[in-house]
Parts: sequence; C-alpha cells; structure tokens
Amino acid sequence: MARIVMKFGGTSMAGTERIRRVANLVRKQAAPKEDGTRDEVAVVVSAMAGETDRLVNFCREANALYDPAEYDVVVASGEQVTSGLLAITLQGLGCKARSWLGWQLPIRTVEAHAKARIEGVDGAALGASMAAGEIAVIPGFQGLAEDGRVTTLGRGGSDTSAVAVAAAIGADRCDIYTDVDGVYTTDPRIVARAHKLRAVTYEEMLELASVGAKVLQTRSVGLAMREGVRVQVLSSFVDDEAAPADSLPGTLIVSEEEMEQLVENGDMERQLVTGIAHDKNEAKVILTRVPDKPGAVAHIFAPLAAASINVDMIIQNVGRDKGETDVTFTVPQADLPRAQALLEDKRAEIGFNRLIADSKIAKISVVGVGMKSHAGVAATMFGALAERGINIQAISTSEIKVSVMIDEDETELAVRVLHTAYGLDAKEEAA
Amino acid sequence: MARIVMKFGGTSMAGTERIRRVANLVRKQAAPKEDGTRDEVAVVVSAMAGETDRLVNFCREANALYDPAEYDVVVASGEQVTSGLLAITLQGLGCKARSWLGWQLPIRTVEAHAKARIEGVDGAALGASMAAGEIAVIPGFQGLAEDGRVTTLGRGGSDTSAVAVAAAIGADRCDIYTDVDGVYTTDPRIVARAHKLRAVTYEEMLELASVGAKVLQTRSVGLAMREGVRVQVLSSFVDDEAAPADSLPGTLIVSEEEMEQLVENGDMERQLVTGIAHDKNEAKVILTRVPDKPGAVAHIFAPLAAASINVDMIIQNVGRDKGETDVTFTVPQADLPRAQALLEDKRAEIGFNRLIADSKIAKISVVGVGMKSHAGVAATMFGALAERGINIQAISTSEIKVSVMIDEDETELAVRVLHTAYGLDAKEEAA
Repeated sequence: MARIVMKFGGTSMAGTERIRRVANLVRKQAAPKEDGTRDEVAVVVSAMAGETDRLVNFCREANALYDPAEYDVVVASGEQVTSGLLAITLQGLGCKARSWLGWQLPIRTVEAHAKARIEGVDGAALGASMAAGEIAVIPGFQGLAEDGRVTTLGRGGSDTSAVAVAAAIGADRCDIYTDVDGVYTTDPRIVARAHKLRAVTYEEMLELASVGAKVLQTRSVGLAMREGVRVQVLSSFVDDEAAPADSLPGTLIVSEEEMEQLVENGDMERQLVTGIAHDKNEAKVILTRVPDKPGAVAHIFAPLAAASINVDMIIQNVGRDKGETDVTFTVPQADLPRAQALLEDKRAEIGFNRLIADSKIAKISVVGVGMKSHAGVAATMFGALAERGINIQAISTSEIKVSVMIDEDETELAVRVLHTAYGLDAKEEAA
Repeated sequence: MARIVMKFGGTSMAGTERIRRVANLVRKQAAPKEDGTRDEVAVVVSAMAGETDRLVNFCREANALYDPAEYDVVVASGEQVTSGLLAITLQGLGCKARSWLGWQLPIRTVEAHAKARIEGVDGAALGASMAAGEIAVIPGFQGLAEDGRVTTLGRGGSDTSAVAVAAAIGADRCDIYTDVDGVYTTDPRIVARAHKLRAVTYEEMLELASVGAKVLQTRSVGLAMREGVRVQVLSSFVDDEAAPADSLPGTLIVSEEEMEQLVENGDMERQLVTGIAHDKNEAKVILTRVPDKPGAVAHIFAPLAAASINVDMIIQNVGRDKGETDVTFTVPQADLPRAQALLEDKRAEIGFNRLIADSKIAKISVVGVGMKSHAGVAATMFGALAERGINIQAISTSEIKVSVMIDEDETELAVRVLHTAYGLDAKEEAA
C-alpha cells in the first residue's frame, strides 16, 4: 500500500469527457493490486482550461482595480466545479470519492489575497477519509486565510497545492500529470535527440524550471524539497492501458540522496550534466562610464532590489578611461521598462553616462549535480561555443549550473551544440 | 435608517454590464438620505442566467445518477461568482462592500442535498459588518449542512435565502427584484387592463403563487409569513433615476394587520377580490363506477398521498347505477403518468371501471382576504361564467379563494370575464 497524490492541470480537466479520462487514471491507481493491497489516493485538480481566464476577465470588467479578496471568491470557483465533477465521475465508475474544498480541510494560507502562500494543510480528516477507502478530490489553487476568507495562490498554484497535500498526509509520491510526459535533457522542439530523464534532483529541477523548462511551478519544487516530497512528472495523455500501474513512466524529482541510490542500484547512469536550459525572457542593461569607486555598484542595485526587480547576471568591464567602468546586468524583460525608469531617476546619484538596453539576448544554462565534484564543465561549455563562433557576453555560475548570456538568434544553435558536447544526445530520436 | 435586504435574480445578474446596473440600484439604496441617515443594506444574488443550467448539465454528463452532495459543490459556485463580482463592482462605485458565502455566515440548512431547507442564518457577524457601513453581498441558493458540507436549496431558492437573511438581521423590508414590476390583479398578457397591486397579504400571495402567478417562490412567501418579514416585489429594469429612493414602486407583501392599516390610512382601497389566477398545469382524472361504500375513496387517495402526489380538487358524482359513483380529481400534469400507473396497480382494490385522464383543463381562482367577511363571491363567479356559457367541471374553496376547473381552451375568456365581474379592470390600460 502507498499513499499517492495525483494532480491534474486545466488541459486534463477541460470538459466532462477529459474528466472521465482522468477518473479512469485515478480508478486504476486506487484499484486493488495483485497482493490484495490498494493505494490510498488523493487527487488535486485545476479548473477547466480557460475557466480561470474567463473568471479573471469578469473581475477586470467589474472593476479594473478589483479587490483581491473578492477576486479570490470569484476565481476559486473554477476548481470547486472540477472537484465536484471529478468526485461525481469517480462515483459513476464505482469508486468511493468525495470532494474537500480549501476551507473544508482547511488548506491554511497567509492573507495575501490572489498570491497567498500555503502555511499548512490539516491532514487529519483527510487521512481518516482516505484510510476508510475514500478517494479525496481537492481543488488546487485555493485556501483559507486566518480571517476565514477564501484565498488563491496565484497562477499555477495547483502544483504547490498538490505538494502541500502530499506533505500533510505523508504521501509516498506526488504525481503531477501535465501535457508533457516528463522532464527532458533539453527542449525537444529544439533538439530532436533530447531524451526524457528518469530522475532529477530538486536542485536540478529548480535550475531547469527557473531557466525555462516550464514543467512545474518553481514554488512547488521548493516546497517539495523542504518537505521531502517525492514528485513525479508524467503525462495525462498517455494510453492508460499501455503501462502496468506500478511502473513509473514519468520523471522522478527526488533528493540528492535518493538520486545517489538510484545510481548505486544501477537504475540511473551517473551524469556530469543533466540538462541544457534556455531562457529568452531576460533583457540586458549596460550602464557606461560608472565611477569606479567603492559603493558605486550599490547605488545601481539597491533601488532595483527595493522595487523587487530580480537582477541575475552581473558583469563589470573596465572602461577606456581610468576611474570609470561599464556595468552590465540582466533583468526580466517584463521589468525592463520599470528598471529603466528607476535608473534614469537615479542617474545623478549613480553617475553613469549612457543606459543601453537590449532584450535580444538569451541565457543558456548547463545544469547537473554531477558538476559539484567535477571540474571542467565550464571549460567544455566555453570551448564548444567558441568552436561554433558563438560569442559569450556574460557568465554566471552556481554549484550545479553554468549560465552564459548570448545573442538571442544563436539560442537554438547553442543548445544543440551543448547537448552534443555533454553526450546527452539519445541513440534514437525521441518520439 | 432602515435595514433593507435586496435580492436580484439571474436575469439581473447576467453579465458584468447588468451587474453594474444592480450595483447602481444598491448604491442608491445605501446612499445617505436628506436627514443624514443611511440604510444598512444586504444584497442576495442568484447566479448569472443560464449558469446554473450549465453547471447542472456538467453534473448530468459526469454521471446521470450524480451524488447530490457533490452536485451542490458544483452548482453553488454560480452564486459565489456573482457575489464576488457584485462586491467588486460596488467597490468600484465607491461603496464599502464584501461578500459572505453560505458557509461563512453560515446559512445553516438541513442535510438534504440539492433540496435543503434553511434552519437559520447567523446574523451576528453580518449585522456588525452592516452596522459598520459595509454592504453585505450574499449568494442565494446555498447553505451549510451540520456535517460541514455545502448544500443548495433547489431551484428558485434564492428568494428564500433573501427572506431568511432578512429575518436573521431583523430587516425592515426584503425587496425582491424580478423581471416584473410587481404583483398584478391577473396575468397582464391575458388582460390588458390588469393593474399592479400596491399590496397583498401573505395568504393571498401564497394562493396567487400556487395557482400560477409565478413571481415569488412559494416557500419564500411561507417563510416571510412565519417570520413576519415585509416583502416587496419590484422590477430591476425600471429607470433607477425616475423614482425617489424612498418610494415603494412595487407590490408589498404584508400581514393582514398591516393590510388593514393601509386601508384605514387610505393608502389602499378595500377590495373583495384581489386577483384572478389561472393554472394550466393540472390534469383531471376520472374513475368511473367506484363502489359507493365507506372507505372506497380512501383506497384511491392513500396510495397517491404515499407517493407524494398532490391531489387538489375532488368531486364525487352519483353514477347511473345505484351503489356506484364516479370520482373526479386533479393532480399536477407532471405526476399524471405516475398517478395512472399507481391507480391501475390498485384497480382490484379500488374496484373502478374506467380511468379517464384529461390534461386539457385549467383551474381559475378568485383570491382575496376580503371574501372572508363577505358572502356572494362564489355566486358572482358562477353567474359570470354561466353567462358566457363556460362549463364548470369542479369547484374547490378555501377561506380566501374560490377555484373552478374548466376546459383549458376557455382559460383566457374566463380570466377576462372574472376580472371585469369583480371590478378589477384598470381605468387605463396597464403599460
């Protein structure tokens, strides 16, 4: 017996026909096994695809400056509907099932409406119901604030709901069903020979997610890491009759210890680099001829931090004239106009000459826990890119990642070159 | 200062433009008056027109034999959405407003899912919020069962929600906004000279509603009568700038005592008959040659009662042969097939010869508290119908009502004849 949380997104829940497909996957997971035991199953669901947008638009039409507390009342209804419908559909397949709304469990959150964080999930009633053989159906994305009002977690929050429920009931695994069948070595639309990874560590997944492999909401991976929840990413559109129920067809996201075990057991090959990610959503800012004196750089980055603008890569070039330097850094493209306005405001204080902005850049990252104990990963990267004449504009590194900034037009070429350079190309083309 | 509950149906809430119209009516009600006081206002809303049907269809598609507890989770979402949207819209107009969901107040109901009855509404938090100047927006139709799960009241239940909220907060009046502008002496589509009534008593309204004047849900009128809630029926589509805020443009539904006062104050004329109702939804059943002996009739009506089939008019004719009689009665058309099957099952026990069913009948009712103290109302009715050659097939009476069964084809003629006979025709044609 195992406790399993299954999470289905909006595409999987779009209409009663698709909900029936989901119900069949759930029934299969909850069915008695050959040894007579059966899994205890909780299901976390999103609203039907398009429904949250419809509800958000209603709020905007009602009042462009809508009250987030009332917005939460409106948009939380989408997941309420799919929860009830999935419970009804499961019952029609002969399963015992019931819904538990966010305020019924409750899923406790902070009071930050429309962008709440989960503080905890009361698993007692839920666990008792599951132990009694009931499949629990839980709306994602919603919670209850301390003042007794409805909250929502922000878009994509249902992944986090699923991980939080899994942590509360001590689930053996949290299966996130999406429209991809796992985490790949890189974007298969760019590299046909990309292959699905059997497992990645939480840290790798965070790096891969934050640089563009948008399979899971970043916050959900962070929560899984903190709570030690084993996550599996897999597709809800595979033929559910093809694989035996106890196989793991997707990608496991686990701790470094479990990964080490998988390698020792021969379930995984040891890899230096796990994947190649790319991100076209950053913009580059260059401030020229900044005075090269102590505290100058603080004048640049303090106001950006105060405005919650995330600065990623930073590089400082010595300028042509003594006592001056050029400072280059990246910010999210969406924040570029705000960043420009803020820096122009502080021009006198910072003392720069020109502000040059460029959003035609890309960040390419090589990610892998294996590089912790191996040198030479960065050298391989720089060599492979140089060989193809790809110019590196900036570099940043972490324990398990090396990122470079390049011209946006060279994104696909760089990803293909690096995928081959680290030996990640599959023997046969991925489907 | 007064406490006012305003209730808006699905047509009034159909889309953000209409919700804005509703919000303007609410703002006007809550605005400071010339003497500096202001009304405390709670608003009860239905789902957008068509939304409940959409949600019910989802449930049916999911599983024809859906669990009513999960059905309630799904369909209650419609009113949740409009509550949040109205609160947002009111805020956009500069009003303080917040929504209170059924489980938040709570509106306590019995556990009969999909057809729950309200047991009570906790008015404490609500009253405090209203006293602090907040407009309360409350979803109709939904409640909370003792086991902590969502319930709904059955279609049309929002009227009852509004009256229950009005009772809980001791409201001075419960205004039900509909697509008609009040209660008329009869159906204006039949009699152009029908006129709007300034006031009717609860008892009259119950008789008028149950025989076809479908302005208010019957259960809500019964609750208003028991709790002494003054109700006003009025249109949400009138020009909201035309009438001063403190006039009462609709029809008041009040106790007999208040009605007596209105007459004494000269606000109302004393009327023998208040209105003429018609109902084409009944069917006639004739059982021929039933043995004319004690207990025979009980054999007919006991099984119908056990099956919750409402028998209305009953008439017993002496048959041609001694010792036998024909029994005629009416049942709702929707229940006719069930009634026929039940009676055929009991044919031996009852001992009838033929069962003749006829749904081409109508019931015409003359209603008025005035007739309690005046004879001759029935005689006027029979005389007026006879004069036009309309054949009366059955008669039933209550303290404030005389009903006759006639051929369905003569419905409109009968209503017009009686409207004139009781002096109800307006001087000028109604708009």
